Parts: sequence; structure tokens; C-alpha cells
Amino acid sequence: MTTVAVAGCTGYAGGELLRLLLQHPEMEIGALTAGSSAGRRLGELQPHLGPLADRVVQETTVEALTGHDVVFLALPHGTSAAVAAALPEDVLVLDCGADFRLTDAAAWRSFYGTEHAGTWPYGLPELPGQRPVLAGARRIAVPGCYPTSATLALAPAVTAGLVDGSDVVVVAASGPSGAGKSLKPHLLGAELMGSASAYGVGGVHRHVPEITQNLALLGAPAPTVSFTPVLVPMSRGILATCSAPLSDPSTDSAAARAAYAEALAEEPFVTLLPEGQWPQTQSVLGSNTVHLQVAVDAAAGRLVVVAALDNLTKGTAGGAVQCMNLALGLPETLGLPLVGVAP
Amino acid sequence: MTTVAVAGCTGYAGGELLRLLLQHPEMEIGALTAGSSAGRRLGELQPHLGPLADRVVQETTVEALTGHDVVFLALPHGTSAAVAAALPEDVLVLDCGADFRLTDAAAWRSFYGTEHAGTWPYGLPELPGQRPVLAGARRIAVPGCYPTSATLALAPAVTAGLVDGSDVVVVAASGPSGAGKSLKPHLLGAELMGSASAYGVGGVHRHVPEITQNLALLGAPAPTVSFTPVLVPMSRGILATCSAPLSDPSTDSAAARAAYAEALAEEPFVTLLPEGQWPQTQSVLGSNTVHLQVAVDAAAGRLVVVAALDNLTKGTAGGAVQCMNLALGLPETLGLPLVGVAP
Amino acid sequence: MTTVAVAGCTGYAGGELLRLLLQHPEMEIGALTAGSSAGRRLGELQPHLGPLADRVVQETTVEALTGHDVVFLALPHGTSAAVAAALPEDVLVLDCGADFRLTDAAAWRSFYGTEHAGTWPYGLPELPGQRPVLAGARRIAVPGCYPTSATLALAPAVTAGLVDGSDVVVVAASGPSGAGKSLKPHLLGAELMGSASAYGVGGVHRHVPEITQNLALLGAPAPTVSFTPVLVPMSRGILATCSAPLSDPSTDSAAARAAYAEALAEEPFVTLLPEGQWPQTQSVLGSNTVHLQVAVDAAAGRLVVVAALDNLTKGTAGGAVQCMNLALGLPETLGLPLVGVAP
Amino acid sequence: MTTVAVAGCTGYAGGELLRLLLQHPEMEIGALTAGSSAGRRLGELQPHLGPLADRVVQETTVEALTGHDVVFLALPHGTSAAVAAALPEDVLVLDCGADFRLTDAAAWRSFYGTEHAGTWPYGLPELPGQRPVLAGARRIAVPGCYPTSATLALAPAVTAGLVDGSDVVVVAASGPSGAGKSLKPHLLGAELMGSASAYGVGGVHRHVPEITQNLALLGAPAPTVSFTPVLVPMSRGILATCSAPLSDPSTDSAAARAAYAEALAEEPFVTLLPEGQWPQTQSVLGSNTVHLQVAVDAAAGRLVVVAALDNLTKGTAGGAVQCMNLALGLPETLGLPLVGVAP
Repeated sequence: MTTVAVAGCTGYAGGELLRLLLQHPEMEIGALTAGSSAGRRLGELQPHLGPLADRVVQETTVEALTGHDVVFLALPHGTSAAVAAALPEDVLVLDCGADFRLTDAAAWRSFYGTEHAGTWPYGLPELPGQRPVLAGARRIAVPGCYPTSATLALAPAVTAGLVDGSDVVVVAASGPSGAGKSLKPHLLGAELMGSASAYGVGGVHRHVPEITQNLALLGAPAPTVSFTPVLVPMSRGILATCSAPLSDPSTDSAAARAAYAEALAEEPFVTLLPEGQWPQTQSVLGSNTVHLQVAVDAAAGRLVVVAALDNLTKGTAGGAVQCMNLALGLPETLGLPLVGVAP
Repeated sequence: MTTVAVAGCTGYAGGELLRLLLQHPEMEIGALTAGSSAGRRLGELQPHLGPLADRVVQETTVEALTGHDVVFLALPHGTSAAVAAALPEDVLVLDCGADFRLTDAAAWRSFYGTEHAGTWPYGLPELPGQRPVLAGARRIAVPGCYPTSATLALAPAVTAGLVDGSDVVVVAASGPSGAGKSLKPHLLGAELMGSASAYGVGGVHRHVPEITQNLALLGAPAPTVSFTPVLVPMSRGILATCSAPLSDPSTDSAAARAAYAEALAEEPFVTLLPEGQWPQTQSVLGSNTVHLQVAVDAAAGRLVVVAALDNLTKGTAGGAVQCMNLALGLPETLGLPLVGVAP
Repeated sequence: MTTVAVAGCTGYAGGELLRLLLQHPEMEIGALTAGSSAGRRLGELQPHLGPLADRVVQETTVEALTGHDVVFLALPHGTSAAVAAALPEDVLVLDCGADFRLTDAAAWRSFYGTEHAGTWPYGLPELPGQRPVLAGARRIAVPGCYPTSATLALAPAVTAGLVDGSDVVVVAASGPSGAGKSLKPHLLGAELMGSASAYGVGGVHRHVPEITQNLALLGAPAPTVSFTPVLVPMSRGILATCSAPLSDPSTDSAAARAAYAEALAEEPFVTLLPEGQWPQTQSVLGSNTVHLQVAVDAAAGRLVVVAALDNLTKGTAGGAVQCMNLALGLPETLGLPLVGVAP
Repeated sequence: MTTVAVAGCTGYAGGELLRLLLQHPEMEIGALTAGSSAGRRLGELQPHLGPLADRVVQETTVEALTGHDVVFLALPHGTSAAVAAALPEDVLVLDCGADFRLTDAAAWRSFYGTEHAGTWPYGLPELPGQRPVLAGARRIAVPGCYPTSATLALAPAVTAGLVDGSDVVVVAASGPSGAGKSLKPHLLGAELMGSASAYGVGGVHRHVPEITQNLALLGAPAPTVSFTPVLVPMSRGILATCSAPLSDPSTDSAAARAAYAEALAEEPFVTLLPEGQWPQTQSVLGSNTVHLQVAVDAAAGRLVVVAALDNLTKGTAGGAVQCMNLALGLPETLGLPLVGVAP
């Protein structure tokens, strides 16, 4: 068995990591650490994790995390670097935070306002050429949930040249679990239930440079994205509606579907739905699966792609475990649920 | 008192019309008609309309509707023309369906597949020049809920020349009440709760030509819109995220806000929120108010506008009553709620 | 016009008071006060209250509240007494908090842990004999939302002797707005959406002595209630399922319905639904209406009553305005919505 | 491998059976049958079941079901008997419908209005003495979702003599997936979201005799239950609040907790939460786990127990797979999720 520690085990990302690791046949769960909740029973804070209910949360320290083969960091932005630096190089460290995702230090500073910690291999295996990078890696930056949805939605189109990655528009409906357990008024249930609201509008959301970076990686010569996240009343899930101008206005939906079908033929977690069927987040809830559908809007001259995923599973913890599998040389899909909890 | 009949009183639009008419100081509610529910107590079908609970639903016939000063039609698409034709010309008829909204018969045939019934004055008072058209009108086509949201969001920008109405992208999160009480599997509660899903993607939704027509009315020389509706788990409300390329890339958010503030200064029902505050549908639930916010995304070169409204109130029945007030020479805001039911 | 101040205007109860007062034809809204939010625009905190958006919140002080005919207190428990004591005796003060509801000082101490502030006339007009008490009153204790639902559900049965008020069981599903805007982890949207949970179980909820007190007022010789509140994923509304052993096991549903029909015949806000129709909270959302239905379960020997109301309207702010109307000698129903916002 | 067929694969119970069977290490999924959906791809109807998306639904016939080791019936009430009778006696048949649950033919006729089909071993392994009955059984009646919740909540108390099973009151909040995919107006999303409603009140719900039967099995000499189901806005989950008069008024919460702790010590799927922690359905969503908490309300003289489970998992399909494991001699917990999908 391979031992694994989770730093930040009391948050939503940490809880989802543990839900998945409990189902994983090769992993033995070791230290569970957190900040202000240290000393409490995990069952008080994550009552759904029955088999770990009696575990006591330790404080997040290098000592507590040392001695494991794998360490997941699900910590506030800006705090991973110090922890990671103190762990041996041969320990696999996967950071679910943003610290090591961006390659451009100026973009980091502009959007996060602090010094750039560095860049780790980017944990999106579906990016062309990325699986060999992740195989054997010992530091992995797990992508953000919105960038995962937008990138997976658009990658086949950019790669196939259907669109060139400029003038991309992404509007993503999301549940509030992506914002974590922060005690903020706008995250209260009474504020969110029965209501939809936009936030981080106008190019200011921190996931914008990450989406742009991914489009560039896919070959977009001058990527731009107008990205708007919309909070909607569901605890989990992202439904991303992505569109971009067609490179060739004569491309039709059949051609677009063919390009997607070819690009996704071997992907275990990304499914192009049959023609006429559009993604719904319920179908992928709790799973590592992404559902895609694509259409050409000839009158508007745009390719439209809709992606559904679970922000906590494929969007965070499931994607992280998928990367872990690759880094450890295990089957990529090992222990990861393919089937959503619906209805 | 002015007498009013509602045809289609058992559906969601009809119920909302009656909720508003019950609060209206000048209206006396007369015949309530429907199709298959004729003969039943209204209270069985619309239990929230207490004061009308003991009214018996009549069958929708010309006889039943005759003798009222105002007739609202909240009927399935394609059925209004016959009813309207049989009503005297001096009766004010407001059609909440689509039949008379489009001016382009070819667009009608292409999206609705039937012969075009004709064109009535379009019931969106906020369109420049439209109030005089509606004053005294006796036939009014009430706009669709999505076109209301997109048009109100974009009108100040097109009018001011901030954008030219081409390459518009609208993604609108909506509750399922807009789809009516149809017994369709995808509208079941278990399918919708905890889930977001897209439908009518790729330029095929019937509201596309109506949005394009409105952009043209506003002066857009070559309007196009990529429109995607997204069902989210709330019974009411639309949150429309609308964007379009800036005509002048140097336009900043302050200039955009100034143009909106000027355009909306006298509008009773459309409010530009203070800077930094973004619309949420809860704030306008049950009211005839629309909340807007606008920002420039300089990197993406797009103006982004978010609009929140209640699809049944300002998006349908409230908008209809607003038009009725104008047509009858009453104060435009008479009897219409300005304050949302929040949280 | 009568002037009114609202202390605690930034919470949910305060917001609902203002929503209703804005619709009230006799009231002029004066000072709006709060604690830590003093100095902010009301529109930031209550964006649904458009007409008051530019009002600046004042600090809750006696000075700010002085000079109004009516003062509503929507303050944390335990803080009303000091404010009320400093206001002139001829000012109508309505306390939406618990401080003055209980007559039994020992019960207060046992459930609230502080000294008892006193007892004011209890603001539930539907209690037999209570309207004369409220007419002209200058201090009124507005009931809790759960006691309102349970008391209105059971009053006709106790009064008619169908049940004797012993062994009452109340389980009430409620939205979280009743808990206010407190920043507590269990009130986060991600925790509440898609989930139901019980709290305050086993006789420890603070509304227990208030329900018992009301049953005694109705004539129950030895009232007891097992009360369990259940949080469910809706922002507003209470659905209370109440049952009690039948005094006479041969009572049938028809007899029970007859007793309720008689008791409620003149009540403007409490409606017995037609036979076979059961309450749903949606039907009364945003209104001051209560829907009831009653049945006899002969095999279980119990009378079962289900009540639906809006916890913020009839359960708090609407009930308070109803009392205000009575105290001021205005028509009891003035300015209060009868129709719910459904669906 | 053991082969399994699912009749009624297109409904919610059938879909959940398949979700669980896909995770089960010993089962090979064979025929998938249904009624009116025969001939369609399963992926159209159950898009979350990705690995089975290309399977074509067969018509439910004896021929299609023949040749499997295990057959699950998830059919409308009243239709299982004919199918089951035509299957060989050595095939394990588990009926998720009600047909074979009741032992009392008169109770069946009274609540279902048809002739009684018979009685099969009752598939609730947690009932004292039931595991040996299920081991090796070839016909099993899977319990209803509400009876599962109420019985598991009360069994330790009745068995330990804390209560005698008379005057039981159960109010259970539930999501609408328990009602299946029926196209009924009250199950539409717009009707359910933001609303709670009671149904089947007054002793008329079909699960009443099943709960009473279970209480009698547990030793209650004269069981009665007042049962009220309440629909709340979540797709899945039951939160059952159950209470009954204490046999000995001096019983305290500690004694009650001790009795529950002892009774549940060896149960793999039923967990007594630590003192002070109350169940929430989110914690058990998608899992076969039941969370319980118990308290004594001394003033009311009642024991109060709250149970949370997933109506489709432990309440139907998970409970069925648990019985299948026992009947086949497999480990009882094999393939069944213990951890909920939260938040």
C-alpha cells in the first residue's frame, strides 16, 4: 500500500479527496491535517466520511505530513509553497491550490497580488502531451475547476483548428462548494437558494489567466477569454457554456462532432454525448466524468460547446487522484467513479 | 373599473397575471378561461390565488372572453390568432405568446414551422420610441422572457454605440417556470434539483430571431447572437450574461457605466446597480424590476452586461401589465411591485 | 402618514418589514438602524429594496429611533428591553425578538439563560380574545415563526375540544432564513442545498415554551409538545405537521373539518383548504396567508393538521404589521399581501 | 461472475440498481428491460450510467429475464407477481415494489385495492433474526423507503423496551425521486423547488401498514403510527423524525443512547452519531449508510429519533443489493458505498 496524507482535510476539497481515497484500492490514508480545526474529530466536520469519523485532525505541519508517499495539499492560496518546500523531493506532492499553476509570474502577480511561487507540471492529463509529463512527476499543480471545464470543452476544437482560441466566451454556472467553507454572507443558504448571481465579472476572476494559458498551450496564437462564473442553487457541479468564432464559417455541426469524437475516442473520463443530448451536471455528480456536447451556430458564426463536470470531483479531487495514478504508475482510472449519482 | 379576462388562467403565466391584477387598483377580474381544466375550481390549480379560489374556470371561447375591456392571452403558441381575430378591435388584447412578436414572416416559419399570423406592436416600453407606439394600442405582443432580459441588458450599449450588436453572446440561467406546466420528463423536480443543463443550443431556440430583431431595432447594422439557455434549480428568475465586442477597444468600465446610467435614468423598472454590485435573481423575484450591471473586459475586448429579472413578472406578466397600463393611459407603474421577495 | 422606524434593518426580518411597509398605504418609513452595518447604503445589504437603496443605515440608538410613531425592533434576543425602555410609552413598539413573549420567568431563564425582561401583549391576533388586547396596545411581542405555525394549526382543535393539547407532536420543515444572516458553517448554501437536517431536537428549542404557553392559553389543561424543526433547502417557508391524540376517538375527518371551518370563517389570513388539498409553502410565499388542512387518522387515534406559512411574512414581519394595524386602529389587513408568489 | 438482469431499468430505482451493480465486483450486468422505453439506448434515459450508455433497453418479458442468476424487479406495484411466477425457483428474484411485503392480505387489499399476491422474506437485514432468513433466500421483498427509515430509527428502542411501539409519530421529509419518473403536475420542478408540501396525510399512505407490521415484528403489542410524508426540494434523501411515548418516563437521553449504541454496534450500515450531532441527508447521499440520533424529551415524555438515509440507495436499490449479497452468500457489504457524496 501507498500512504497518503491530506493537508486541509476539513474543507470541501479535502473531504472529496478523502471520499475518493477511501474507495481507492492502493492507498492507505495517513495523516489528516488542518489549521484551526486541529484537535477535533473528523466526524464532526465531515460527517459523510464515516470510516474516518474517529480520526483526530492534526495541525498542518511538516512533521505531520512527513513519512507519506503522497501528500495532497488542499490549503488556502499562497500557503502551499512553504509546506511543499519542506517535503522530500521523492514525495509526490499534489497541490489543489493555485500557487503553482501559472507559468507567467506577471500574470500571477496581477491576479493574486503576491510573489510567484513557481510552476509545477500542470495536472490536466487530457492536454495533448501532458500524460508523459505527469508520469513519474513528484510535484503536480492540480488545475482549477473552471479552467478544467473550459479547457476540456475547447481543447478538441482548438487542436483541430475549428477555432483559433481568440474571442472565446465562457459562462459557467456553478454550485457554491467551489468557494469552500468560507463564512461569507453571499454564501449563506438563504442567499443562494432560489437565486442565480454572477461574480468576478469582466475579466477579473483568478481563473482567467489559467484558461488563457491552456488555450495557448493548445496552440492558440492569441487567446482571449471573456469568463463569467454564475452561482446557481446546487451544492456541486459546473455547467460551462463555451463559444468561439469558427475559423471556417462553413464548418457544420457534423464536422465539429466528428472532430470531437476523434479527439475524445480514447479519453476515459471525457464523453461526447450522442447528437441531440445536452449535458446536465446531475449525470456526472460525484464522478470523475465530463460530459460534452458541441454544435455550430451558423448564423452567429460560433462553435458552442457545453461541458458538465463535478467541480469537486473531476474539477478538483478526482482530477488530483487521476494525476496521482499517473505519477505513481498506476492505471489512470484506478479507484475513480465513472458513474454519476443521479437523479 | 376596467374589466379584464385572462385566457389560459391555469398556467404559470396566467397565474402570474392574476397575482398582479389582484393587486392592481383599476382592474376588475372577469372571465378566467382555459382548455382542458375548464369546469374546475381555480383554487385547485392555482392555490396561491386565494381571493379567486372559488372561481370556476371557463372554457376558452370567444363568448367567454367577450365583454371585457382587456383580454390577456396566455395560450400555447399558434392559438392566439384565432381568438384575437374574433374580439372587437376596441378591446385591448395582449398576447403573452409568440405569435405576433416577429416582423419577419420567414423567420417565423423557420423557427415555428407554421404560417405567420402577423405582427403587433411589440410590448417592450423600454425600447427607444416604443412608449408612444403602445399608448392607445389595442393589440400588443408581449415579448419573450429571454428577449426581454437580453434586450434590456444590451439596449443602452447598442444605442450609445459602445457595441454594434454583432457577435453578441448571451448565456441565460433560468428556472423552469418559463417552460410552463408541460408534463415533460426533463421538467420533473428530481431531474432539475441539484442540476444545471443547457438546451436549445446552437442558434435553434425560438427566442433567437426575437433577440436579433430587437438588436436591429436598436440600430445594430448586422446583429448576430449566440444564445444558450441554461436550466438551473430555481423555480423563477433569469440571470442573463450578455457580452459583445467593444466598438472602441479603449472604452473603459467607467465610460460604459456612464452610458448605462444616462440611458436608464428615467426608467422605472430597470436599475443599474452601484459599481461593484452584481445582480442576483432573488432581489427581483416577484417584482417587475430588472437589475443590471456592466463591466468592460479590456483583455477580451468585450463589454459584459449581467441582467436579473423574474421571468414570470417583468419577463411575462408584469411586462404585460406594464403595457396594459400604457395602452389604457394609466400610470405605467400602477399596481406593479418594485421590490423583490428576498431572501 | 404615520412614521415608522426599523431597528435591525439589515437582517432578514428587518428586510421583510421594509418590503411590507413600502407597500403599506399609511406608513412613512423613517430611520433605518443596525449595529455593525451602520454607515453603509441599505442597497448594498438589501438589494431587493430598490426604493430604499440610497438610504444610509444609522446606528441603533435611542436618538435615532426617537420621534417615530411606530418602532419595530428586529434585534438579537436580549437586546430589545434596553431600547424599548428608553422609548416613550405612547410610541408603538413591536419586538420581533423573543424577549417579551413568555409570561413565565422561569421558562425564560431555563431556555434563554438570562433574566426575564417582562411580558408584553402577545401579537397573535387569531388567538381567541387577543384582538381587543392588541387594539390600542403600545408594546407588542411578535410571536416566533414556529409558534405561529403550530398555534394556528392547533387552535381550532383545542378550542373545539377535538384534542386537549397534551402529547402534541410538531415537526416543522423550514427554510434557513429563520436563522437570520448569522455566519455559521451549517447555514452555508453548500451545506443546506440538497439536504435536510434536524436541529434543536428533544425539547430544547427555544420555541417550545412559547408553543406550550399558547396551548395553555387556548385552554389545554396540561399541554406538552414534542417539537422538532427540520431545515430543508428553500430560503423561506414553514410546513408544520402537527398531531395530537383525539379526545373522542370517534371524531372523523368531516367533524374535524367542520370545526376548523367554523373557527376560521372570519379569519382574513388563515385559510382551511378544500378537502383533499394539502398545504404547500410555495402558495403562501411572500404573503401573510396561512394554509391549513386537517385529517383524522382513526387507526392512530390522532388529529393531524398541516400548516404552511412564510416564516418571514406571517411568521415574523407580516404578523408584526398585522398587529401594528390593530394597534393603530387601521384595518387589520391593510397593506398585507394575501396572494403567494408561486411557482 | 454472477449474472443479473434489471426489469424496470429506466426508472429511478432501476437506475440506482445499475449504478451500484456497476461498482459491484461479483456481478455481470445482463438484460436491461422496461415497458414503453424498450428499443431505446439506455444512455438517452439514464445519461449518468456511462458504461451502459450503448445498451439497448429490451421489453420486460420472461424470455428477456430468463437465464440470469439474479433478477431485480423495479416495476409498478401489482406487476411483479406475474413476472416472478414465470422465473425458475432457483433464480434469486428481488422485488423493489410493494407486492410481496405485507403478510396481512386484508391490509394489502385495504391500501392497494387489489388481491394480495403473497408474502416473501422481507429484505431488511437489520431486523432481529432476519439475516438467517435472507441467507439463501430466492425471493426477497425489498422494503419501502419510508418503512426502512422509520423501522431502523425505532427498532433499537422497541427491542430494548424504551418504547412499546404504540402512538408512534413519524414525519419524513423526502425528495421526489421516491415518487419515480411519473409525469404528474405536482412533481414538476417549478412546483417543488422552493416549496415543502405534505401528502398522503392522515393514515392513508401505503407505507403505513408496512411500518406497523415492522413494529409488530419487533415486539410491539399494539403498534400504531401516525405517518406524514413531506416533499422537500432535494432530489434524494429522507429525513425521518420519529417519536414515541417512553415506557418509563425516567429514561434519560444517556440511557437511550446506550441502548442504541449497543443495538447498532455490529451494524455495518446504521450509525449512531456522536452525542450532539444530528443527521443530515447530505452525509449519506448515494451511500447505503443510515445516520441516527436519539434524544429523550422529558417534558413531552417522548423518545425522539431522527434518521437520515438516501431513499434510492439504502431506501431501495442499496438495500436490495445488500439483501442480494446475503442471499448469495457474499459479504453483506460487498460493493456498497459507505461514504456519502457531500456537500
